[in-house]
Amino acid sequence: MAPSAPTAAPVLPSRGRLQPLGLDEVRITGGFWAERQSVNAEATLEHIGHWLEREGWIRNFDLVDTGDLTRERRGREFSDSEVYKYLEAMAWEIGRTGDPELESRFRAVVTRVARAQDADGYLNTKFGHSGQPPRWSDLQWGHELYCVGHLLQAAVARARTRPEADDGLVAIARRAADNVCATFGPDGIDGLCGHPEIETALVEFARATGDDRYLHQGALFVERRGTGRLGDVEWGREYFQDETPVREATVLRGHAVRANYLAAGAVDVAAETDDPDLMKAVRDQWRNTVARRTYVTGGQGSRHQDEAFGEDWGLPPDRAYSETCAGVGSVMLAWRLLLASGDSGYADLIERTLFNVVSTSPGADGRQFFYTNTLHRRELGTVPDGDRPSIRAAAAQRAPWYEVSCCPTNVARTLASLAAYVATTDDEGLQIHQYVPGTIAHRPVDGTDRRLTLTTGYPADGQIRVRIDSDDDRPWTLSLRVPGWADRGATLTVDGEVRPVRAGYVTERRTWRRGDEVVLSLPMAPRFTHPDARIDAVRGCVAVERGPLVFAVESVDLSGGENVDELLVDTSQPPMLAGGRVVVCCRRLDPADHHWPYGGGEAASTTTPRGDLLEVPLIAYHAWANRGPSTMRVWLPTI
Amino acid sequence: MAPSAPTAAPVLPSRGRLQPLGLDEVRITGGFWAERQSVNAEATLEHIGHWLEREGWIRNFDLVDTGDLTRERRGREFSDSEVYKYLEAMAWEIGRTGDPELESRFRAVVTRVARAQDADGYLNTKFGHSGQPPRWSDLQWGHELYCVGHLLQAAVARARTRPEADDGLVAIARRAADNVCATFGPDGIDGLCGHPEIETALVEFARATGDDRYLHQGALFVERRGTGRLGDVEWGREYFQDETPVREATVLRGHAVRANYLAAGAVDVAAETDDPDLMKAVRDQWRNTVARRTYVTGGQGSRHQDEAFGEDWGLPPDRAYSETCAGVGSVMLAWRLLLASGDSGYADLIERTLFNVVSTSPGADGRQFFYTNTLHRRELGTVPDGDRPSIRAAAAQRAPWYEVSCCPTNVARTLASLAAYVATTDDEGLQIHQYVPGTIAHRPVDGTDRRLTLTTGYPADGQIRVRIDSDDDRPWTLSLRVPGWADRGATLTVDGEVRPVRAGYVTERRTWRRGDEVVLSLPMAPRFTHPDARIDAVRGCVAVERGPLVFAVESVDLSGGENVDELLVDTSQPPMLAGGRVVVCCRRLDPADHHWPYGGGEAASTTTPRGDLLEVPLIAYHAWANRGPSTMRVWLPTI
Repeated sequence: MAPSAPTAAPVLPSRGRLQPLGLDEVRITGGFWAERQSVNAEATLEHIGHWLEREGWIRNFDLVDTGDLTRERRGREFSDSEVYKYLEAMAWEIGRTGDPELESRFRAVVTRVARAQDADGYLNTKFGHSGQPPRWSDLQWGHELYCVGHLLQAAVARARTRPEADDGLVAIARRAADNVCATFGPDGIDGLCGHPEIETALVEFARATGDDRYLHQGALFVERRGTGRLGDVEWGREYFQDETPVREATVLRGHAVRANYLAAGAVDVAAETDDPDLMKAVRDQWRNTVARRTYVTGGQGSRHQDEAFGEDWGLPPDRAYSETCAGVGSVMLAWRLLLASGDSGYADLIERTLFNVVSTSPGADGRQFFYTNTLHRRELGTVPDGDRPSIRAAAAQRAPWYEVSCCPTNVARTLASLAAYVATTDDEGLQIHQYVPGTIAHRPVDGTDRRLTLTTGYPADGQIRVRIDSDDDRPWTLSLRVPGWADRGATLTVDGEVRPVRAGYVTERRTWRRGDEVVLSLPMAPRFTHPDARIDAVRGCVAVERGPLVFAVESVDLSGGENVDELLVDTSQPPMLAGGRVVVCCRRLDPADHHWPYGGGEAASTTTPRGDLLEVPLIAYHAWANRGPSTMRVWLPTI
Repeated sequence: MAPSAPTAAPVLPSRGRLQPLGLDEVRITGGFWAERQSVNAEATLEHIGHWLEREGWIRNFDLVDTGDLTRERRGREFSDSEVYKYLEAMAWEIGRTGDPELESRFRAVVTRVARAQDADGYLNTKFGHSGQPPRWSDLQWGHELYCVGHLLQAAVARARTRPEADDGLVAIARRAADNVCATFGPDGIDGLCGHPEIETALVEFARATGDDRYLHQGALFVERRGTGRLGDVEWGREYFQDETPVREATVLRGHAVRANYLAAGAVDVAAETDDPDLMKAVRDQWRNTVARRTYVTGGQGSRHQDEAFGEDWGLPPDRAYSETCAGVGSVMLAWRLLLASGDSGYADLIERTLFNVVSTSPGADGRQFFYTNTLHRRELGTVPDGDRPSIRAAAAQRAPWYEVSCCPTNVARTLASLAAYVATTDDEGLQIHQYVPGTIAHRPVDGTDRRLTLTTGYPADGQIRVRIDSDDDRPWTLSLRVPGWADRGATLTVDGEVRPVRAGYVTERRTWRRGDEVVLSLPMAPRFTHPDARIDAVRGCVAVERGPLVFAVESVDLSGGENVDELLVDTSQPPMLAGGRVVVCCRRLDPADHHWPYGGGEAASTTTPRGDLLEVPLIAYHAWANRGPSTMRVWLPTI
């Protein structure tokens, strides 16, 4: 494999339908995501650095050289990975903005990491040093390979944004990857990591370095999984996806982050080794998972006990785990499948997950995060102590940090690299998958520059104006995604001519001239969404959506002190926009308390709706819980 | 306190509305429960003994004296308690039947336990010996006091069934209790146990021995709880009920077994210390718990992660934890509240829980057990390996043994002592709370024998015939419980005169003569049961009940291969009895698969009921999963 050209993007397959444009080619210049990126740059990255120091997770690297790891090391067995994800986030951010202060912070951390690496490339602060368990002695829970995976992803980000840099991160990663190949190769330890991550990372590192050894090692790890090598645990081998080989599985199952990371790695292997069987297996798994195991927000994972997918149709909103990192993993997987296939359904899920999971995790200030993203909170709960890492994944409110603090760094690296998920190219032209105000500039091999400007207020507004800023002498195809939810009512305006368009990619092929304009108009009336009848937990309920956003009722908006759990929506009246808010008409349930809540006849169900119609304002789900403790629900029972 | 007269019953309050009759006074001679008791005696007790030896949990006691506990001890930190619950079950069974072979098994185990007791009374195989953590060094998780509690309950059972026995168990328990009082008294360690149990055990031991010190120590433990002494854990201090003092709490919360055991102990303390405030606090907690946090089966606990109650109305059937031991704990609590107050609602819950939780756990052969009792299983799952303890609490089928194997011994001790929950006495007369074919014989202080025979096919049949077999010279009141579900349609026949009776206790006072007869007739037509509208997880569903039994649809009964999750009940047709089965009319849901299971309009909900009405046979919930792997649901969506 030849090393990929240094496009500033996290995923650069050498084969497949589409090739991404990088941060250097796509600029997000305003709107929803630019604001998120700005908070990420100005608050979140500093916040992460602060907590990583405060909790000693960076200092652990110093201790390898100078301290007493046995006594002084702090953090869980995977804390090294947070430092690497912080590095990855900074690398993308430096690529995006060139911030010199961030560059020096980045280098300082790399220097400390470098000193902890053993001569043979092994790098981990939890294992293998005096007084610690030996290297690779706990593949089930030790996360050593997982940590190396995140190190490689950080190095890939650096290599693709500052290929000329002399900080040494790529060399560190190469030594660590070589150590993994030497240790776990065909003649080495016949094992794999309890938490997938190394698989996708090794393939991407192979792409970045052009060294096929890393691809082969990643493929080997993918093939080893599903054969029971990891041993059993209380919630079953599927927790690690180790009960069924990747090629034979039909759906994502077990721990939802692990499942998505593994599937992403399998797609990477399938793409690079040209393995249509493996690719089809993962596509089918994705299809079944999205059809039966995914929340309306795009969230995945409905079990708190093992942070796992439940069975088909088991999607309780009140116990939605919907881990932020599973959302990130789902975007990783869907993006790889989109690049491989060009099918719009993957971009649909990415959009839904970005707006309703990834952007829900951070609070407005970028300094607190939901680890899980429930769709229904019945009780106010208590506000986490802002001065300590939360020990509760399912915190009642966003917390600044967690003992298992994977979400802040995962959100940060995703937001910093977000421009790389907006547009792609192929032999025919350009494809735009996500709508942001911004610019796209791409020079195809043997072609002339293609420059575009996107103007839109999306998702507040449904009009997306694409203006061509360059002249071409050959025809090429501009493809715009029409989301699945916009299947009825979307239009495309070209040369003043309006035509209805359906879900999928609408295309316009021509020899584009500077000033040419195409306007995609998406239907933005708020709408009721009904669940499949087999999702038991939301039977008799509707959700409200507008554009790509899911809405919710939050107690702080109920001026009459109504209980979010005692409202019934009147679906004969469509949801409206009023005063800038999405509003639904409701009646109040008038529940009578009984000593026993089950009984004969309808009386027992205490469903007499009371009083006049109320106009209840909703809030975009991603924005909830920014106004103090509150109760909330996405799915609303109907009258 | 004077020691209680040795009535053969587990709970003998010195104050309160009602006093229980013991195993020596109530005999269950046939029917549902006699069959269960027979399987318990003939299969379960032997099964438990076999596994306790096989897993080394009895041998651990030998090791204190002769072995190497550090290397050889097996089982979790609470495994001693299973040996004590086994002793308790055997003690009741010996009291019930006088089986000499069981008597010798019992004595053999007591002898081995005795040798493990330290000179100062401390008794535990996990702590305090060479190479082990020190005594009382882990109050949060160590279960040392919990184990002593079960030892005391075993001794109480023995003292009340064989007061003259020379096996030494009561003396062992007394030394252990004295050690607890010396260690944790007002001047001792200011701590308490992470798992309540010692509280109720100490009060009962005080009742059995007449020694108030044990009562005071139990009261001290009750008062210490709720003050944060145990420290925090991931799922919150409420896991241990340590976030709010017992007197201030308004509902049961946290770990459902712990919550019930603690509340039972608090009632015991309130009864013995004549503390109406404490009693009222627990009564209110019970009332709110039953009204908002209890499954239709009587099951409690809806969270797998921490085996805990959820919040009000959070009662998902598919993730019902409904731990068998929480059912046992709920019976313990309700029985104590019934004795204190005489209110029939407590006996109603006991009946419901015995028939639908406690009797659901053991399989028909008495050699396999559900640890949790879900109300909905969507997938077949895999049958547990019968040759190893299951590491999964939520096993797909009943398992012979668990790594945490609290349910077999808890079921065994409950079934063996069940006759003590049937009837009570007070100054007015006799009360019958549970209906079994059997005899009651009681001699009141300063009175003549009262003897009765109960004849009934309950719960298959609703007629309960009570015949008086003794002559009296003074009037007394016979009280019969009319269950809440029988509020409409129950009748009492006295002297050929039939009168309608309502839920609660129906009474008949007279000077009874041999041959007098009273017949209670309960309405046994199967019925639809509707949930409170606030129980989100079963909106739009009904359950089917008949008498005290909850019914379910089980896949093995669907001869046409229908999926239990694709049936809609037609509630316009009442459930019927046909061919000895309860039958409901259903249509098949005809779900269309979509790539995304949420959409606009009713189309997305794919609810076109298809085809003709099907007559679907149901099974009593307690009997499910005895015919191989199956899917099942209690709550059925309606058309």
